[in-house]
Amino acid sequence: MNTDHPAERLLMGPGPSPVPQRVLRALAAPTIGHLDPQYIAILDETCELLRQVFRTRNPLTFPVSGTGMAGMECVAVNLIEPGDEVIVCVNGVFGSRMQDLMQRCGATVHTVEAPWGKVIPHERIAAALEEHPAAKLVGIVHAETSTGAHQPLEGLGRLVHEHGALLVVDAVTSLGGHDVRVDDWEIDAIYSGAQKCLSCPPGLAPVSFGPRALERMERRRTKPQSWYLDASMLRKYYTGEGGRLYHHTAPVNMTYALREALKIILEEGLDARIARHAAAHQRLRAGLEELGIRYIPERSLHTLNCVAVPEGVDEAAIRRRLLEEYGIEIGAGLGQMAGKAWRIGLMGHGATTRNVDLLLTALRHCLA
Amino acid sequence: MNTDHPAERLLMGPGPSPVPQRVLRALAAPTIGHLDPQYIAILDETCELLRQVFRTRNPLTFPVSGTGMAGMECVAVNLIEPGDEVIVCVNGVFGSRMQDLMQRCGATVHTVEAPWGKVIPHERIAAALEEHPAAKLVGIVHAETSTGAHQPLEGLGRLVHEHGALLVVDAVTSLGGHDVRVDDWEIDAIYSGAQKCLSCPPGLAPVSFGPRALERMERRRTKPQSWYLDASMLRKYYTGEGGRLYHHTAPVNMTYALREALKIILEEGLDARIARHAAAHQRLRAGLEELGIRYIPERSLHTLNCVAVPEGVDEAAIRRRLLEEYGIEIGAGLGQMAGKAWRIGLMGHGATTRNVDLLLTALRHCLA
Repeated sequence: MNTDHPAERLLMGPGPSPVPQRVLRALAAPTIGHLDPQYIAILDETCELLRQVFRTRNPLTFPVSGTGMAGMECVAVNLIEPGDEVIVCVNGVFGSRMQDLMQRCGATVHTVEAPWGKVIPHERIAAALEEHPAAKLVGIVHAETSTGAHQPLEGLGRLVHEHGALLVVDAVTSLGGHDVRVDDWEIDAIYSGAQKCLSCPPGLAPVSFGPRALERMERRRTKPQSWYLDASMLRKYYTGEGGRLYHHTAPVNMTYALREALKIILEEGLDARIARHAAAHQRLRAGLEELGIRYIPERSLHTLNCVAVPEGVDEAAIRRRLLEEYGIEIGAGLGQMAGKAWRIGLMGHGATTRNVDLLLTALRHCLA
Repeated sequence: MNTDHPAERLLMGPGPSPVPQRVLRALAAPTIGHLDPQYIAILDETCELLRQVFRTRNPLTFPVSGTGMAGMECVAVNLIEPGDEVIVCVNGVFGSRMQDLMQRCGATVHTVEAPWGKVIPHERIAAALEEHPAAKLVGIVHAETSTGAHQPLEGLGRLVHEHGALLVVDAVTSLGGHDVRVDDWEIDAIYSGAQKCLSCPPGLAPVSFGPRALERMERRRTKPQSWYLDASMLRKYYTGEGGRLYHHTAPVNMTYALREALKIILEEGLDARIARHAAAHQRLRAGLEELGIRYIPERSLHTLNCVAVPEGVDEAAIRRRLLEEYGIEIGAGLGQMAGKAWRIGLMGHGATTRNVDLLLTALRHCLA
């Protein structure tokens, strides 16, 4: 294997997604200092672009220096104190991870569960809030990458707020590909990943905290259990509030890349981009159904298409052939769907007619 | 300010350090999947190169997906359980951070303190171990970036092990610029940062865990409080032990860059590189002393030169002039040294005669 010059791939798995040349070029600009006035200006611009993509005016909006799961952890450690009760919706791997992570923060986690592939009806969340009036937050996955289920969120914020809790949303696989409206939907804390529909290399986790979340953090009696992800300190560096205070060395080149990726998104326009993802999904769906391949979730994401492997097909062999003969990466099933599903990503730069048609052609060939 | 094409800088602060063109080029290679066999091969090679640079055979040696402080946190959360007693040596900002972080892990922290700029005599650590026989580990900073003090480590591992504790070392500003011998010095867990003497952009924190640390982790009664940094899961992804298990999406492009940076180090040779850092430091020291500028620490690092700002000099104005007229970044004093010190980095690619002479010339000009 020539690892000095690896073969290029068409990334149609659950992430990373294809990275535009412009973003790679931005990534490789000369490194400057994380406290250089030039870098601070770039960072401020990046955070402002992030606000536009999140559709929020939250001042505390920034890229966490880690991959998507660091974003989940950043939200959890800052909003939870030991002994808190929380509600987590679990219908796939990422809901389970949120449950595990919040337990590690010392929370008592009440789950609202649904079978994998199903979404969680808001009535069930309302019932959980009635049953657990002390619940401090509700955590939910907007785009469950393990099942491809697209969770409806509109109206949920108001419901959660009526019970005095906060709404925490995992938008790792939706931000930049599906509609995500932080302010309109009254989301209090949200995190995503750079390497999905934003089409930036992996390594950053955009997060945003709203006013209710800030208030919760200010009322903490204990320090967050993480130093690296402590928002009370990160805030001083990322917003410049009270003087720009050094916290950790920000990933300078990754910030260059994220800024460029966000610029590309806003040049295209968020609505146009979301429509492009929808169109690519519909084209893929029609083609797959023609091949007799069935979608698993009841309400599929456009960005991540989780389909059942046809009976009698060796799923790993097909993925290997796609990779070796076509240079196309698609994803295996995760967790309880291992061996039974394929996960096809149409994310960001990769959600195009050309890619959909190539994949369908390649699949038809490999399944023949 | 033109943030699309920021002015290039000569990075002579406390990090990031100058990044070679070869590393920037590697960084910008096309992104591939984090489970792609090609990427796994690149990752395995990177971990093997890291072992050589750490001078260790520890199987669990890998780059944490975050900056240096994420490395500190990774070591702390995996080795500490709530209620543990630990000893932390504090003689600067990074020792204090280790204390704060370990307290957040639920540890009772006993400190061995020395004035800023001094190193910690091993006898004092021995006395602390006698006084606190239940101490589970000793944490110490090899290269204190806030003061420039170079902590001697030889012999400390044996001492700590005689008391049944583990030795945890912060090598953020020493790895790749000073001698760091993980196996010979019996270091049980160590972390560093990509952006100092390794001359890679910031965003990764190399860590290594030895056999005693692994044993400690295996005997834990509780899960580590961090999901993102849980070594029991990271291990399966990074070493492939028991099948290559997905944990989080590794920062693919940053791994390309780190691999290239490590290759450059080993092409030069570790000993030659360490000698180059020593020579650059001596040249700088002689030149600064000629200008009447005094070193602060009793035993200075080669990689980070912490010097006293001459009386009557406006330190921020000089730094600003260096930046604006010469494009040279040096660091301000940190913590209790703010306003009183400059921190001049000679790290990795930046530790050259040319850079030293340019900085001395520029300083002479600005101080005239």
